[in-house]
Amino acid sequence: MASEFDLIQRYFTRPAEKAVLGVGDDCALWEPSPGMLQAVSTDMLIEGRHFLAGTDPEKLGRKALAVNLSDLAAMGAEPRHALLAIALPAADEKWIASFARGFFAQAARHGIELIGGDTTRGPLAISITVIGEVSRDHALRRDAALAGEDVWLSGGTGAAALGLAHLQGRVQLAGEQLSHCLARLDDPDPRVALGLRLRGIARAAIDISDGLLADLGHIAENSGVGIDIHADRLPVEPALRGCADADLLLECIAAGGDDYELAFTAPAANRAAIEQIGSDLGLCLTAIGVVVPGNAGVNFRDPGGQPVKMARAGFDHFGA
Amino acid sequence: MASEFDLIQRYFTRPAEKAVLGVGDDCALWEPSPGMLQAVSTDMLIEGRHFLAGTDPEKLGRKALAVNLSDLAAMGAEPRHALLAIALPAADEKWIASFARGFFAQAARHGIELIGGDTTRGPLAISITVIGEVSRDHALRRDAALAGEDVWLSGGTGAAALGLAHLQGRVQLAGEQLSHCLARLDDPDPRVALGLRLRGIARAAIDISDGLLADLGHIAENSGVGIDIHADRLPVEPALRGCADADLLLECIAAGGDDYELAFTAPAANRAAIEQIGSDLGLCLTAIGVVVPGNAGVNFRDPGGQPVKMARAGFDHFGA
Repeated sequence: MASEFDLIQRYFTRPAEKAVLGVGDDCALWEPSPGMLQAVSTDMLIEGRHFLAGTDPEKLGRKALAVNLSDLAAMGAEPRHALLAIALPAADEKWIASFARGFFAQAARHGIELIGGDTTRGPLAISITVIGEVSRDHALRRDAALAGEDVWLSGGTGAAALGLAHLQGRVQLAGEQLSHCLARLDDPDPRVALGLRLRGIARAAIDISDGLLADLGHIAENSGVGIDIHADRLPVEPALRGCADADLLLECIAAGGDDYELAFTAPAANRAAIEQIGSDLGLCLTAIGVVVPGNAGVNFRDPGGQPVKMARAGFDHFGA
Repeated sequence: MASEFDLIQRYFTRPAEKAVLGVGDDCALWEPSPGMLQAVSTDMLIEGRHFLAGTDPEKLGRKALAVNLSDLAAMGAEPRHALLAIALPAADEKWIASFARGFFAQAARHGIELIGGDTTRGPLAISITVIGEVSRDHALRRDAALAGEDVWLSGGTGAAALGLAHLQGRVQLAGEQLSHCLARLDDPDPRVALGLRLRGIARAAIDISDGLLADLGHIAENSGVGIDIHADRLPVEPALRGCADADLLLECIAAGGDDYELAFTAPAANRAAIEQIGSDLGLCLTAIGVVVPGNAGVNFRDPGGQPVKMARAGFDHFGA
């Protein structure tokens, strides 16, 4: 059996290009761009909690980095460096090679460089830290929403949660609907390019990992505002239309989570600019609501302005 | 049961003082000091592998951060920011409060600020990322050792491994020897102050986590040099003298690991400066060997220069 150090060297050590010093010392070192804030985020993924046992390691490598890149996107930060700490039940070379392939493919796609990490034996757990850069004026903070701003959503939500519901036997999907939902669940596409384009255009932003309602709730709470969502304007991806269980579909769209889309607020004056960005990126951007004054939370409203009740408030790791 | 978000907010959210934006957004943000390299390191600790089940959570909180601070120390970096990702089998408030107490006590001691993290349910795993600063000219890299330099060691090694051997029933310790060894095992004191003082004095450095031999081997390999250790000069802490099992003691000193002392190389011209630093810090600094030309690895030698054989090469997470 190869030793820990052999495994790390073979699969996770690549020469540093952006960093001053990469994998293989007590610390990695990098030189920040002058005048730029450094942005950092960390996420831990646990087998059986964030992904099913037996998940294809290549997809897992892609997704584990994707969910972290999504946090940089939601801050408008440009990805620079990543660290990977991983606990593995065994030194399974085939698994590690496949995971590394997925991880590095995602890294190359978004120009992020692995500069450090840790490998140990234990129940499968993946902890990634990502570092990026953004200027102080352009950071898309959760506490920056102002009353009167539009609330926007990229792409559409619900597909990943619907795919998970299928795997859990809660709904029976088939054909293109099934393959679309599983692709969204297994292989989310972090909105890094969108986050970069929104600098100077959007004010507050968040990525949708815990569910649209719950995540918009963080913007509302941190900004001291309310958010009214026009329920009829919520985008429903074409592949999700005709889902047999309409209640489950709505629940997944509003509160499913694992979407890794961006929700953001912006002044109405920026509508044309935002539509242009959507057009440039080939990404559907929808104005789904409005920021309102007061600590009113997030409310779904029908076209007449009346509240629409939602069953679940979002996904909570320690909740039921 | 409190939700994940409540728990995080109650125990791990404190107002950011050094950072521009701390816990509670997609990313934390900080402003680097002009002209300074940023140093980052990550370590994952797994129950049953890096600490025993049932370990006092307050000590665990202190130690989990200590082993990461030790990596900054070994780079000569000043601690700035930390991120904590933690998987817990249950939302045990008492455990979390105690862990947080230990973590923040260690953080306050070394001036490092928690700016982000992640909490989830899973088998107990703690993944910490630490960020610090060091100038390009003063970074203590593993690849910087030059033939002819002295090799130094702070404090002494072996006590933590001997304490673990006691807990595993491999040796019977008692009295002050036992309490000293368990204290070194449970509550290592990262050599942050030493690392900062060694900037401009030492050239290469590493912290001793996997065992003195193995870690010196990393300096030798990365620097393309050999290291000769004078076995008779290896410090034996007073509390370890008189250990009944001399072979085990030597094994622990040379290859035990979990010591979190610094080994470093420095030109002979800096001997007086290094002794002054040891005196200032109240920390024993011992010249234990010399850097030699060629890829000769690490060799223990007796006073006559003859090789001394060691039983184990070091601790390997995936080895036997």
